[in-house]
This record gives sequence, C-alpha cells and structure tokens, in this order.
Amino acid sequence: MSKQFKHKIKIYYEDTDSGGVVFYANYLKYLERARSEAIYSIGLTNTKLKNDYGTLIIVKSCNIEYKIPAKFEDELEIVSHVSSKTKTSFSMIQSIKRGEEIISDAEVKLVTVNKDGKPVKIPQILDKFLN
Amino acid sequence: MSKQFKHKIKIYYEDTDSGGVVFYANYLKYLERARSEAIYSIGLTNTKLKNDYGTLIIVKSCNIEYKIPAKFEDELEIVSHVSSKTKTSFSMIQSIKRGEEIISDAEVKLVTVNKDGKPVKIPQILDKFLN
Amino acid sequence: MSKQFKHKIKIYYEDTDSGGVVFYANYLKYLERARSEAIYSIGLTNTKLKNDYGTLIIVKSCNIEYKIPAKFEDELEIVSHVSSKTKTSFSMIQSIKRGEEIISDAEVKLVTVNKDGKPVKIPQILDKFLN
Amino acid sequence: MSKQFKHKIKIYYEDTDSGGVVFYANYLKYLERARSEAIYSIGLTNTKLKNDYGTLIIVKSCNIEYKIPAKFEDELEIVSHVSSKTKTSFSMIQSIKRGEEIISDAEVKLVTVNKDGKPVKIPQILDKFLN
Repeated sequence: MSKQFKHKIKIYYEDTDSGGVVFYANYLKYLERARSEAIYSIGLTNTKLKNDYGTLIIVKSCNIEYKIPAKFEDELEIVSHVSSKTKTSFSMIQSIKRGEEIISDAEVKLVTVNKDGKPVKIPQILDKFLN
Repeated sequence: MSKQFKHKIKIYYEDTDSGGVVFYANYLKYLERARSEAIYSIGLTNTKLKNDYGTLIIVKSCNIEYKIPAKFEDELEIVSHVSSKTKTSFSMIQSIKRGEEIISDAEVKLVTVNKDGKPVKIPQILDKFLN
Repeated sequence: MSKQFKHKIKIYYEDTDSGGVVFYANYLKYLERARSEAIYSIGLTNTKLKNDYGTLIIVKSCNIEYKIPAKFEDELEIVSHVSSKTKTSFSMIQSIKRGEEIISDAEVKLVTVNKDGKPVKIPQILDKFLN
Repeated sequence: MSKQFKHKIKIYYEDTDSGGVVFYANYLKYLERARSEAIYSIGLTNTKLKNDYGTLIIVKSCNIEYKIPAKFEDELEIVSHVSSKTKTSFSMIQSIKRGEEIISDAEVKLVTVNKDGKPVKIPQILDKFLN
C-alpha cells in the first residue's frame, strides 16, 4: 500500500450546525486540508505545483459515507492514502477518525490539470506522494 | 418518476476559492438548500418536522461528480428528485445546472432519525415529498 | 439619503452553529451578498467592474453589532445604503432584519482598488450606486 | 496587561475566494478559533462551561480592520488578549499576523449568558483567562 498521511484537526463553532453536529459539507473541507498537508509533507505546496509545474490538482468526484456524527470540540484525525492512479489522475481513500471510531469514510478522485483545466500528465515531483 | 424540485442560487464571493471557481465542498451546501426548499414547497419546515414529528432528516452518504466548474456570479439551478425509498430512508438525485450545462451530479442518501439519532419510520407528512 | 438596497435571504443548516443560532462570521457573508446584489441592481457585476474598469471593491473595515440572534429557517432582509464617500472609498450602513426586528447592524468601509491592490478613483459607472 | 494567547493557523482552499485572497468573513472564524484555544489553554472547554456552569460566551460586537490580505497557503498567528471587562462582559484585542506583518486587527466584545441568552456574571473559573 502507498504511504499513509495523517492530519489532526479540531472542531470549532464554525464547523457545527444547529443539529449540534458537524455540517455534512464541512467534512469535505477536512479532506482537502488533509490532502494539502500531504502535499506539504513531501516538501511541496499547491502554489509551487501551479507556478513551477503549471499543474493544479482538482477534484473529479467524491463519495463520502457518514457513519458517526462529529461534535463540537472533537479532535479528529484524517488518515489518507493513494489507492489507485492513472497517467493524469489518482484516487485517495480518506478516513476521518475520532480515536478508533470511524466518523466518515471517503473516496476522492483527483485529476491533474493545466491552467486551462485540461488534464495533464501527473508531474514527476508528485512521485513521492503517489508511490 | 417522483416530483421534481427546482431551486435557483447565485454564486457569491463566499462560494469561490483562489482557483477562481466554486470550492468543491460548497456544492454540498447548495444540495442541502435545495432539499430544504423542497421540504418548504410541501408546506413543511425542518423545524416543524423536528418539533411536531420528532424527526430529523440526516445525510448518510453523498456521491458527487464534478463535471464543469461553476464560477463567480454564476446563476445555477439545482434540480432534485427522490429516486428510491425504504421505510426509514430515501435517496435523491440532485443535478446542479447552469442553463443546460450540468455542473455537478449527485446522489444523496438520507435517513429519518429521532432526536437520539435512531432511524425511524418516515412520517406520513413527507408522502407528498416522496411520491 | 442615498438609495436604499434590499436583499432577502434564508437561513439554512450551513449558516447555523451548535449554539442553535447563526454563526457570527456568517452575517458578513450576507452583508457581502447584499452589496453584490446592490451592484447587480444597477446593471453591473463585480466581474464587469474588474474586466472593463480594472476595479475591485475590497473591504477595509467592518464594525458589526449583534443584537438578536437569527435562527435556523429564518427569513431575513438586508437593508443597505451608502453613508459616505471619498474619491477612492465609501462606507455603507447595512442592517440585517427579521420583519421589524434588527438582528444586526453593521458599518462597512470599502475601497476601490486596481488589480495590484492600489486604491483608485471610484469609476463613474458606480455613480448610480453611490448617489 | 492581561495574558497573551497565541494560536497558529494555515490558509487552505476553503479560506480563499476568487479574488485570490482570504474571504473577509473568514477572519472572524480564526478569531473564534483563537478564543476557543485560549479557553482550552486554561483547561476549560466551551462544552464544560455550558454544562457545568450554565454559561455561554457570545459575541456582542466585532470591529475588524483589514490591513493586508492573507493568501492561500499562508501561515498566520492570532495574538489575543483581554483588554477590558465588566461583571458580565469582556473585550478582546485580537491581531492576525503573518510573521511581523499585521494582516488584520480586531476588537471583539463578548458577553457571558445563560442558556436563555440572558447576561450572567462571568463565572470565577474564567478568572485565569481574564486576569
């Protein structure tokens, strides 16, 4: 299996809704934070990827299952790994956990595109991330 | 096919990101707005559903495909219909459109629960919505 | 007094927090929506202002007082007017109301800048908005 | 001067808008995160404050000045201190910084209320925070 990336977050007021739990769209923010942190962990940034390699990583699809609601002031961890790849795209499995409990499981398909939004070959600099 | 619900929205600064397009998590906000508006269109509110029927509608899963990015100041329409149902859950197909273009397609599975989060029979008052 | 601009919004799950009311940062979203709608009401868009006049309107300061909390499924109206102006800036008074009740009062100072963020003379096309 | 609280954040896609900078409402999220972290730093949580002391801290007003726009992937620090207090309220000065640069300066007035939203005496447990 490819490398595992872990990122911790906290749940603040901004994350919750009047149902008393985290609003369902907000989990996608945490998934994105975790993907960005994974990029940072290999010494890269999205800005560098765009400016030096003309490449952006965009989301093509997201399939998320909500298992247990996260609550205000929870501390969560997002555990992510690359599950498959093609020349211009890759998929990630991302779990949002509270201790050993799985809050949410997601599969996210990502595509590398140029500044015009056209799919391009994944730049080699991302190898450390993908393998 | 069950009844179709339509809801129009506009894209403001709050919806976009530095990529110049709508941030991928925000589409889930529009799907939720459209579902709430569908509830309102049958003379109901989430508040009434909770207070009078002890029932909340929660999201169990969301599978969303991003086809064309929506941009700042776009006017979009969310077209939704119930695609299947069980005693305690139902699924909706929701398309986010800009004119005739499909921006995003989603399938959302929803469950009716009581205040303790336990699945309960869908209250009859939702029949107009589900059939 | 300058022209009054009115814009109606609804409070969805995304707007609320676990305190059961609208999260305090979100009111600034509604103020921005109302300012954009005021721009639209004179036949302009932020995009046109940027592309045809090289001008962006940015917020310099915001002073907001929270009087009554807005709640889930509330219908609110934002009433706005330009209260003062200089060559490169203007201020707006914006009230967020629920019927006759004042939910929140804000004074927002805005500056017109070019693409490099430097203050520029307010373009004449905004006269209808400012007077 | 009262104790200084420091909290570091990162700017992700969710924080930015199509202007390429942080959306002006989002700074209020960071101010709130920093206030919550200050509460945590004295061994308390908002949940405990509510459940054990029947007290919520709500925002009465916020006066924020935007000096320099923060950008995607910036690392910021929020430096906060209590600037004044009464029996049922207190004010905080909160600066959002990028290194030595001041991004934004804010003064936030907070009130302690009971579950019905009525102002109540600030509980003694907050002394470590306020002095």
